[in-house]
Amino acid sequence: MTQHVRNGWYLGAWSDEIGRRLTQRWITDLPVLFYRLPDGTVTAVEDRCPHRKYPLSLGHLDDAGILQCDYHGYRFGPDGVCVGVAEQADRPKAALRRFPLVERDGALWIWPGDPELADEGLLPDTSWLSDPGWTQVHGVVPLKARHLLLLENLLDLTHETFLHPTSIGNAAVAATPIDVTVDGYRVGFSRRMTGIQAPPFYEKSCGLTSPVDRWQDGEFYPPGIFVLNIRLAATGTEEPEGFHMKVLYGLTPALGNETHDFYALGRDYLVDDEELTKFQHEQQLAVMQEDVDALEAQEIMYATDQGAMAESSIRSDLAALRGRRALAKMLAREQQGDRAPRGRVSV
Amino acid sequence: MTQHVRNGWYLGAWSDEIGRRLTQRWITDLPVLFYRLPDGTVTAVEDRCPHRKYPLSLGHLDDAGILQCDYHGYRFGPDGVCVGVAEQADRPKAALRRFPLVERDGALWIWPGDPELADEGLLPDTSWLSDPGWTQVHGVVPLKARHLLLLENLLDLTHETFLHPTSIGNAAVAATPIDVTVDGYRVGFSRRMTGIQAPPFYEKSCGLTSPVDRWQDGEFYPPGIFVLNIRLAATGTEEPEGFHMKVLYGLTPALGNETHDFYALGRDYLVDDEELTKFQHEQQLAVMQEDVDALEAQEIMYATDQGAMAESSIRSDLAALRGRRALAKMLAREQQGDRAPRGRVSV
Amino acid sequence: MTQHVRNGWYLGAWSDEIGRRLTQRWITDLPVLFYRLPDGTVTAVEDRCPHRKYPLSLGHLDDAGILQCDYHGYRFGPDGVCVGVAEQADRPKAALRRFPLVERDGALWIWPGDPELADEGLLPDTSWLSDPGWTQVHGVVPLKARHLLLLENLLDLTHETFLHPTSIGNAAVAATPIDVTVDGYRVGFSRRMTGIQAPPFYEKSCGLTSPVDRWQDGEFYPPGIFVLNIRLAATGTEEPEGFHMKVLYGLTPALGNETHDFYALGRDYLVDDEELTKFQHEQQLAVMQEDVDALEAQEIMYATDQGAMAESSIRSDLAALRGRRALAKMLAREQQGDRAPRGRVSV
Repeated sequence: MTQHVRNGWYLGAWSDEIGRRLTQRWITDLPVLFYRLPDGTVTAVEDRCPHRKYPLSLGHLDDAGILQCDYHGYRFGPDGVCVGVAEQADRPKAALRRFPLVERDGALWIWPGDPELADEGLLPDTSWLSDPGWTQVHGVVPLKARHLLLLENLLDLTHETFLHPTSIGNAAVAATPIDVTVDGYRVGFSRRMTGIQAPPFYEKSCGLTSPVDRWQDGEFYPPGIFVLNIRLAATGTEEPEGFHMKVLYGLTPALGNETHDFYALGRDYLVDDEELTKFQHEQQLAVMQEDVDALEAQEIMYATDQGAMAESSIRSDLAALRGRRALAKMLAREQQGDRAPRGRVSV
Repeated sequence: MTQHVRNGWYLGAWSDEIGRRLTQRWITDLPVLFYRLPDGTVTAVEDRCPHRKYPLSLGHLDDAGILQCDYHGYRFGPDGVCVGVAEQADRPKAALRRFPLVERDGALWIWPGDPELADEGLLPDTSWLSDPGWTQVHGVVPLKARHLLLLENLLDLTHETFLHPTSIGNAAVAATPIDVTVDGYRVGFSRRMTGIQAPPFYEKSCGLTSPVDRWQDGEFYPPGIFVLNIRLAATGTEEPEGFHMKVLYGLTPALGNETHDFYALGRDYLVDDEELTKFQHEQQLAVMQEDVDALEAQEIMYATDQGAMAESSIRSDLAALRGRRALAKMLAREQQGDRAPRGRVSV
Repeated sequence: MTQHVRNGWYLGAWSDEIGRRLTQRWITDLPVLFYRLPDGTVTAVEDRCPHRKYPLSLGHLDDAGILQCDYHGYRFGPDGVCVGVAEQADRPKAALRRFPLVERDGALWIWPGDPELADEGLLPDTSWLSDPGWTQVHGVVPLKARHLLLLENLLDLTHETFLHPTSIGNAAVAATPIDVTVDGYRVGFSRRMTGIQAPPFYEKSCGLTSPVDRWQDGEFYPPGIFVLNIRLAATGTEEPEGFHMKVLYGLTPALGNETHDFYALGRDYLVDDEELTKFQHEQQLAVMQEDVDALEAQEIMYATDQGAMAESSIRSDLAALRGRRALAKMLAREQQGDRAPRGRVSV
């Protein structure tokens, strides 16, 4: 049985990845087929034909939005219901497993679990992804490490000091404590660095002269979304004069202990500066590669730890520990088949 | 424990594959060593030395038919019995596990299970493989998919319409129902297509102008043999004037979910037309590659289907369902250790 | 749980492999980090940070011998105790798992199990590795086979006849019986070949004209050390005039069924003949590659033997059988948690 929470929104794809071409992506151990119907709406179904499990992504989509399995000809309408079998008189009672899907601000959010529990209200605000006052870059990076390790990476940014010292990290990050807030399963943290040296990425991104103030406000929307609000300003100036950036991560379990590491990085200034956009995108990918290398090395250590040695934790782990606990509670509830509306739960 | 039926004949090798060179091939999770003795007979033994399991296929065969393990010198006579250890005085009581083997019409049939149950009467007629009135090509293709998926592929040829549209398939195949016959564990089907367009392969193979009649008569000899009789004729002519082809498939489980996909394709006309033979062989391999690609994609979907979703079936699945049931019954019987002579069993 | 004996000395590394650079090596399913402190002593610790298991081998060692994890900044003193977290005020109570380590004669011996049981008295005499009257070469070869198969290879040298006929083996090895001695868990054997043809390696190594006498005296120090004493002399001369060689093997389980195959080959004559040293080293590596190829083929046969077929044994297996039994007894004792001082045990 999968060890992934399925009752929750995951970033399944970016809108610009999905067109008429049939696209397969593994999500929480399920093969998901994404495709866009003639009316422009996107459908996500389990990528196994109900007949003999052949991947429908190897089939065809016609102009009427009929999806045909190219092994034996089962055909499915836009609602996933079988409309017949090509060349045959049979019309089997069969339907694809369709996943709740929300397309919003250029992102496709999928709910791989119980459709009745899917609640759009659980999605974070992503309006900045489509706001003309912002510019953003986005993509997805493959990661051979379990979802939890990526989550803990994001909820404990002290690692920027050690893993990303040439771009976004310096001593101030690890040296500055965080405040942690918990709201139901959601976990937030904020770190206020004031009067510090700007790390290279921010120095170049904002053209600021140190000292600067740097604020990090992170929010984990379990099971798979993390948003980081970044504010930079010359020390002594007020927030309205600062530089705003946002990073959204979609932490989407793939198959086994592999994870899709979706990202979007946006800013609300110099939105037409393409050179800056290019620089930021390159830096974002370089930082993510440093994380991928670290997490894949860490994954091996977890996967092979037969004794499951106890872990030492410190105050800066608080947000990550709360996030881990939230995930564990969600998974336990889901495995117990608890379908009651979720109230506030302290994690 | 292996999940393969072992009490049955499998195509182990083609005669022209086996000479004095020691040849290893995995069959139903067993490493099998094939070699030809000086008198020309072929022997098949488990490819593990009884001493320390070293593969005997890495050893030597001398001109007297003595097989020597090249790790520590155990030596075995043509009957598989240990005749001594090179350079040593010991003569351990040890013997190789020998498998019943039948060489007939250029094919080597192996029975990997209980030798006492091996019954040549269970083999299909393969005289056409050596009949001078026929010509044939043969070989073997590796397949990373379980044996059952290959069987179901062959017992439901409606897939020719979708998977092989440029060679042997067109709409008529899927559109024409089959008759199914069951005889003990054996499952047969026949499909009579009349007045149809000839698919490209048959058009070129027979030089026929459409419309044609095309007959498919398939027979599954469980656990691992399938024979397809093909007859083509101009519509309105009688069978004796038609073109006859036969395809034999050996579906031989290898190790885990890998399978050897043996094939022979023969015809009873233009037997000296080497160009036609070359064309047919190329087409056969191209069709098999399309099947391999599909089955390997399908295998992943079965191997990862944690929920084991129910399957939808239609009338054209009848032969495949009967074949699947026959295999399951054989396996269950075998695992229960039932060694009674098999009577007629309805599947 | 690991199936490896951990309460015993294993060759962890050669001294010249370990400097200030952090070096990871898997030993008995544990990731071990080796590094040399500023005072020259070598430390071996589990290569998982107690914080979040990140490999410390990806961290840094400073000039004071402080090891820092480069994921979140945990820092450890030379004794493995956490001395703080970089940039943070926390000083968690955490310590690395340190392994007993002995550096002697250019070899680093590690005890991956219970430190209280580590007893230097169990190490064999290796003074010849650093004796100026001897010269030696050494290294390590990776092996994808379980430790036991390498042990049995070394305890039954009849395989030299079949696997190494162009270098160290000829018929005399398999033809000459061994005497076996057992002392507690230790197993020794001796083979006295007299008046034989010298195999090519020894002919060239010693410049002897056949017939020669060749003596092999092997000793297994369980769980992972094997020493072979080799003496060559012209037949009819006495021992003091002979040529002495020694081979030490470190059989160190790595991860799963992989093994580090450490070796040192020494001689007490022509110690300054570098050409001879080069020849011997090349031959040693060639012989080991023949063993690696054989053992990896054998490993597959053990790993896939579902029926676990019984093995046939002969007199020449006696040392190997005793070695296997010693290992099994050690493992059983260890798994029962027996920590009593070990007395003499007959194997």
